[in-house]
Order: sequence, then C-alpha cells, then structure tokens
Amino acid sequence: MKNKKMAPIGVFDSGVGGLTVAREISRQLPYENIVYFGDTARVPYGSKSQNTIIRFSEQIIRFLRTKQVKAIVIACNTASALALDAVKDEFDLPIIGVVIPGARAAVEATTNGKVGVVGTEATVQSGMYTKVIQGMNPKIEVIEKACPLFVPLVEEGFKEHIVTREIIEYYLESMRNTDIDAMILGCTHYPLLRSKIREYMGDKIQIVNPAYETAMDLKRLLEEEEMANDETTEHHSEYSFYVSDAAEKFRKFANTVMPFDVPTTNVVNIEEY
Amino acid sequence: MKNKKMAPIGVFDSGVGGLTVAREISRQLPYENIVYFGDTARVPYGSKSQNTIIRFSEQIIRFLRTKQVKAIVIACNTASALALDAVKDEFDLPIIGVVIPGARAAVEATTNGKVGVVGTEATVQSGMYTKVIQGMNPKIEVIEKACPLFVPLVEEGFKEHIVTREIIEYYLESMRNTDIDAMILGCTHYPLLRSKIREYMGDKIQIVNPAYETAMDLKRLLEEEEMANDETTEHHSEYSFYVSDAAEKFRKFANTVMPFDVPTTNVVNIEEY
Repeated sequence: MKNKKMAPIGVFDSGVGGLTVAREISRQLPYENIVYFGDTARVPYGSKSQNTIIRFSEQIIRFLRTKQVKAIVIACNTASALALDAVKDEFDLPIIGVVIPGARAAVEATTNGKVGVVGTEATVQSGMYTKVIQGMNPKIEVIEKACPLFVPLVEEGFKEHIVTREIIEYYLESMRNTDIDAMILGCTHYPLLRSKIREYMGDKIQIVNPAYETAMDLKRLLEEEEMANDETTEHHSEYSFYVSDAAEKFRKFANTVMPFDVPTTNVVNIEEY
Repeated sequence: MKNKKMAPIGVFDSGVGGLTVAREISRQLPYENIVYFGDTARVPYGSKSQNTIIRFSEQIIRFLRTKQVKAIVIACNTASALALDAVKDEFDLPIIGVVIPGARAAVEATTNGKVGVVGTEATVQSGMYTKVIQGMNPKIEVIEKACPLFVPLVEEGFKEHIVTREIIEYYLESMRNTDIDAMILGCTHYPLLRSKIREYMGDKIQIVNPAYETAMDLKRLLEEEEMANDETTEHHSEYSFYVSDAAEKFRKFANTVMPFDVPTTNVVNIEEY
C-alpha cells in the first residue's frame, strides 16, 4: 500500500481558479503530493454545454491517470456541477467535486433556511447547488444567480476599479433584497472578489467558499480509504503543474496564489487524451 | 470549372463574431455559398498563445475542406494575426484574413498618418496590424491597445449599461488624447460597440471595420482566380452553420445578425480533425 499512499492527488480546473482549492489542500494536507491541470486552452467552461464539459473532463482525467493519481478533485464548480456524476460512473478511482462540500457548508451556515448561490451561467442553469442543498434539507430555499462578468473582471485585474462595484450591484441587488443569511461563492474565481462582495452584501450574510470544505472532504476520503500519505518524516511534498496553453502566464499567476515557489509549468496537448 | 465555382466559401471564427464578416460577404457576394464554423467550445481566442491558435485554425481548415470549400476567410482578427502565415504555407487553397484588408482601409482613411488599433490581447501583442500597416506605408504611426473586457461586455448584453461607457473610457482615454484620425476595430465583436466607441472618440476619427474590406478582397480574389460563382439565375445561395458547442445558443445569435433565417446549426467535434 505504500506506493498508493505516496501517489499524488490530481486537481483540475478550467484554468487558474482551482489553484485556490489546491492551496487549501496544501494547507490541510501538507504531506500530499499534487498534480494540477489547468485547461487554459479551452477556458472558460462557464458558458459551455454539458456534453462539452464532460468530454473535456474525461480527457483531463485520462491525462491525470497517466500521472498515477490516487484520487481526483474537480476544483471547478462548472465541471463539478455538470460532469461529476458522469465521470464517477466512468472511472474507477475516487473523484470529488466542490459542489457537495460547498452545499454542506451552506446548509450548516444558514439559520433561517435561505441560501444564495452565485456562479457561472452553466453552473446556475444546471441547478445542481439547489438539488444538492435540498437533498440535504428539503426545507431550505435556494436563490441562484449567474454573474458571468465576474470571471473576466478578475482575470483583467479590475478588482479595485469602480465598475466592479457597479457590476456587483447589477448582479446582486435582487439577492441583497432577499433575506438569505448564507451565500455560496460557486465559482473558484469569485473568492478573489470576496471583500467587494462582502462590502456590498453586508456583514449579516455568511459567505461560503467551497475550497475549504472540499479539502476537508478530501482528507476524510483519504482516511476512509486508507490512502493518506503517512510518509510524514523528511518528506517534501511534490507539486507539479500542467496546462493546455500559455504555461508562463499560468506560472506567474500560480506564484501569486500558492504559498511556495512554482518553478515550472508544463504544456500538455490535452485533446490527445 | 463549374463545380469549383459553385463550391462554398469557408468562413471561420472563434465564435459568433465572424458572423459580421459572413453578413458582409452575403451582401457583396450574394451568389456565393458559405460554410461557417464557430469554435464555441474553445472561445475566446484572444487570451491564448500562438501555437494554440495555429493548432485550432488547422483543425478548422481540415474540417472546412471536408465541405469542399474553394477558399477560406479567417473572420477572426486573432487567428488572422497569429495563424494566417502558418496555414497559408500549409494548405493548398486560397486563405485570406481580416488584418490585411483592415490595415489597407486604415492606410487609405488616415490623412495625418496616425492610426489607432483596438483588439484582443493576443492580436495587440502580435503587433501584426502595425507590421502590416507599416509594410504598406512605413511613415504611418500606429498606436495599438488591447481591450479584453469588450468581448464579455458584448456577449453578456451590457452594451447599453453605464459600465460600458466607463470601460470604454478606461481603455481608450489615452488613445483619445492622441491625434489619430483613423481607428481599426480589430476584433469582430467590437463593431457591436461601434456607436458607443464613436460617441466617446468623437466625430473626427474614421472608424474602420475590416469586415467590409475583407468581403471586397474576397470578391477580387474570386475574380482573379476565376472562381466566382456565376450561376446567378434561379440560384439560392446556400449557407450552413457549424459550431463546436452550444448550437442552439449560436443559432439564436446568428438570427439576430444574418439578414435571413438560420434554421439549423450543427455541432462538430472539431478536435477530431
């Protein structure tokens, strides 16, 4: 079993957003090795169809398997919402997404049974957060809202620009007028706008970032399956980063997110998998 | 030669933007048949690398060849700037892009020899508009500016929102402070913001949309090569539309752009080409 325990965790996302999940895994599971894949040639996923998201996810999982991963974390909300069920049936290794952990955190956070979810168009159209939350507690009311401009605003560095406040108001005004008391940031880019969203929505709402809960779920899974890496002495965990395009741009961004130096990023022709 | 003359023109773009070019071709060359491909599974191209844009363009051209096209128009500025030279060498059929026609129109439009170009990050980084314009007239000064948020603003229907005016100001303030007298809309989405850009930039600047000149160039090419369709009597030109994802969303958008009804759009797994 030693080999399997030392095998890496595969983490993937449509691009850089999932690095926030990888960072959380590195904090909670410091002895685990990680192979990260960002699909930068085909980003974004949030405006694309379920069939396409499933096909992309299958290719990435086939690639990650060549790296002998012991488990896979889908760090992208859109792929978690649209592809998790399909790929879990298809592949014979543990795969977890971010939607179920995020939903559970919101169910625990709400006291009045009213939860808001913000995400990409594809995530919101899937209604997956509502299904999962109401599967846990059918009495909870869920209000979902797609905020498609949040991702380009983050990617183009508009976080501090006045228009970001106006676009937050445009998308979230109707949600602020409800009495939700918990809100899921259902896209890995959105935590990067967290302080602006918090400022607009006020202090009474608990903001849930699924990354933290996802890392907790992964920890539980590895323990249950007896796959956790217990080579804790003199072990430096290894992280490797792969993308489908623009490796240098990714590497620079990764260095602003990860708590250690990311020296290299490799390009993979993901369509061949 | 009759068969060849009746063969369609292949037109492709990263998504819906190139429909403005197809529309211009349909106006100027009403007897030509068109096969359009929009790469909606991998849109946008403007933030991706040259190698990736070339690979995507090669796959699309291989697909269009299966439709027996007699010539190809790259209706996407990014692919024209980054991939035209590579694919012209590789494929044995006439291929034109939008950059050279757009550059020529600007060279003709400017009277003071100062031209502005707005486009995606990839187009501007390539410096291709500057190279082509200065190849035509080395004395012309070219100022290029990437405006990456324009595409999502158009796609998300923010054209009339107050933030669009503010983002136009953010990107174009420095250009307005120069004395350019012609400006190329170097991305097929930007003509959809034309009136707002005109409002901000003022009446003294000639705004150049490469779509018109591209259709003119195509007409000249077909005549020179004796490939123009002269089956002008009782001929209804045939248009077919293919995408790599989300056909129905594309079809709806196409119906707002094209001057006739677009009844069907077909999905192609473009990675197989």
